[in-house]
Amino acid sequence: MPQSADVNRQIVLNERPQGRLTDNTLRLATTDVPVAGPDQMLVRTVYMSLDPYMRGRMNDAKSYAEPVAIGGVMTAQVVGQVVTSNLAGYEVGDYVLNMSGWQDYAVSDGAEVINLGKDPQNSSWALGILGMPGYTAYAGLLKIGEPKPGETVVVAAAAGPVGATVGQIAKLKGCRVVGIAGGAEKCAHIVDTLGFDACIDHKAPDFAGQLAEACPDGIDVYFENVGGKVLYAVLPLLNPFARMPVCGIVAWYNLPGLPEGPDMAPAIMGTLLRMKVKMQGFIIFDSFPPSVYQEFRKDMMGWIEDGSIKYKEHMVDGLENAPDAFVQLLDGGNFGKMVVNVGA
Amino acid sequence: MPQSADVNRQIVLNERPQGRLTDNTLRLATTDVPVAGPDQMLVRTVYMSLDPYMRGRMNDAKSYAEPVAIGGVMTAQVVGQVVTSNLAGYEVGDYVLNMSGWQDYAVSDGAEVINLGKDPQNSSWALGILGMPGYTAYAGLLKIGEPKPGETVVVAAAAGPVGATVGQIAKLKGCRVVGIAGGAEKCAHIVDTLGFDACIDHKAPDFAGQLAEACPDGIDVYFENVGGKVLYAVLPLLNPFARMPVCGIVAWYNLPGLPEGPDMAPAIMGTLLRMKVKMQGFIIFDSFPPSVYQEFRKDMMGWIEDGSIKYKEHMVDGLENAPDAFVQLLDGGNFGKMVVNVGA
Repeated sequence: MPQSADVNRQIVLNERPQGRLTDNTLRLATTDVPVAGPDQMLVRTVYMSLDPYMRGRMNDAKSYAEPVAIGGVMTAQVVGQVVTSNLAGYEVGDYVLNMSGWQDYAVSDGAEVINLGKDPQNSSWALGILGMPGYTAYAGLLKIGEPKPGETVVVAAAAGPVGATVGQIAKLKGCRVVGIAGGAEKCAHIVDTLGFDACIDHKAPDFAGQLAEACPDGIDVYFENVGGKVLYAVLPLLNPFARMPVCGIVAWYNLPGLPEGPDMAPAIMGTLLRMKVKMQGFIIFDSFPPSVYQEFRKDMMGWIEDGSIKYKEHMVDGLENAPDAFVQLLDGGNFGKMVVNVGA
Repeated sequence: MPQSADVNRQIVLNERPQGRLTDNTLRLATTDVPVAGPDQMLVRTVYMSLDPYMRGRMNDAKSYAEPVAIGGVMTAQVVGQVVTSNLAGYEVGDYVLNMSGWQDYAVSDGAEVINLGKDPQNSSWALGILGMPGYTAYAGLLKIGEPKPGETVVVAAAAGPVGATVGQIAKLKGCRVVGIAGGAEKCAHIVDTLGFDACIDHKAPDFAGQLAEACPDGIDVYFENVGGKVLYAVLPLLNPFARMPVCGIVAWYNLPGLPEGPDMAPAIMGTLLRMKVKMQGFIIFDSFPPSVYQEFRKDMMGWIEDGSIKYKEHMVDGLENAPDAFVQLLDGGNFGKMVVNVGA
């Protein structure tokens, strides 16, 4: 069932997953296409973003955002097109960035919407390099990581939209940059196309040894996207006064509970203490002042225009395929920013 | 064998401890009293400081300082008195602050020595409230913790010289302050004498529940001195944008290896991420610019003079009793700043 003007397909949370997602976690539902009231507009989803943070919204845990309710539409940012508008500043045909969720249509009063205009180039990039992942990479690296020329920056999940951008910005800042990714194909892309100095395959049996070899001067900045064994391989290599922006721990998102031991907490805390490390978690929506966003837009537009930043999308066709694609994303099976073509 | 002019008693590292200290870890040795050469002075130990960081020096691990060699004299800061001097600026009878180590006599060329003058009041305080522990508390709390009036500050090891000072400074800054200590006597002192709002006994069976009750508005600053179960009780209470100066993890210093599971790392890293927490390890010697030390001296002298900061020492008599006292310190058996009276 493709997108149509007559029905609104939704992917809703059917039950909270205990660990990995199952076929029962999400389900497809259909409703009538909603109608825009006064001072509202109706937005049709064109591209939908899939991001690891969505896994957290499936849990009923204290966090920075409300969990998705059982039966509720999953959260997502989308690039959409205005179908009907009773809202000043938005015309039929305008492309917009909106938190529509995993569905074909959403009504909006304009809150947190960005108007991309009638004919944006690469409109889906607003979900990636020019949007949340790009801004996350920029602010986390530069404002928390504070890399200095000549320092060694290590980036986990380096083939993902955040990691790939972190590494490229670090190269622009004069750092030695080592990526970590899953598989030879991703690693080749990271070195050959993105220009990292090295990339280590975390699936290699001697991963920790290879990482140490690639960082002969230790690690000054570790951009944390994954946690787990990657973090444990990084810890012994951290230099005095190293900085760790903590952006994600995707290796642990599917955990139903705490994993078996040994308890690595003393290793983490001991390294922090002995090496005087700063670790800081951040959420792009509220960890930085608006001025940082303005810096980001200006710098990133310039870097994309002059070709110094490369960007890769992993496009999936069809809203109905979003659940499988999301499972693939959590398993590291994506290669580039995962975007669902819902109605392009 | 008390201190004498004829022999230099030393406590040396006999073997590296695997876990807890044993009777074989340290041993008493004697040497001749050293002789001051040109541009040197001979310092007789009066008071010697015992601090948890010394446990780390017994390990042969990558750290911020060189480990003590097998057969080497254990590291310690002391208040000493000049016995002979060929060094400009130091006269016989002057009291000095010096890194003499666990021994009766040491020769110094004046490096890293502070001259306390002929008749300092409470000279041993230079090892505590006016020295390294006091400065550690001040800089860690104010420069990393950045407490704001009305916020909740939780301090581990609150009866120790660092923790007691952290809490009193936080009170002066207008915070709600909750201490954590071992036993009813310490907790009573912390509330009644030091003026904390509450103190929770970490030996209580429902410690975590009591801590949560004492922090109805969550925790904004957690000053980490201990790690272990205290850290695990704090994690779920941390507020968004909480700050954690990491000063010590004494609960884990005696670990021979990583403890059994579950692995708490996902809980630590997940809290950091969701709550946007900053954790920062620091070492007082090199984590702050000299201007912070000047601020500390000025503020602390003022607070002591006007009575707004209280200070308690746990005095142990005799160098020969230092090893047992150090074991007691690591077990939390001290009540106040532990100082050994070597030759007062």
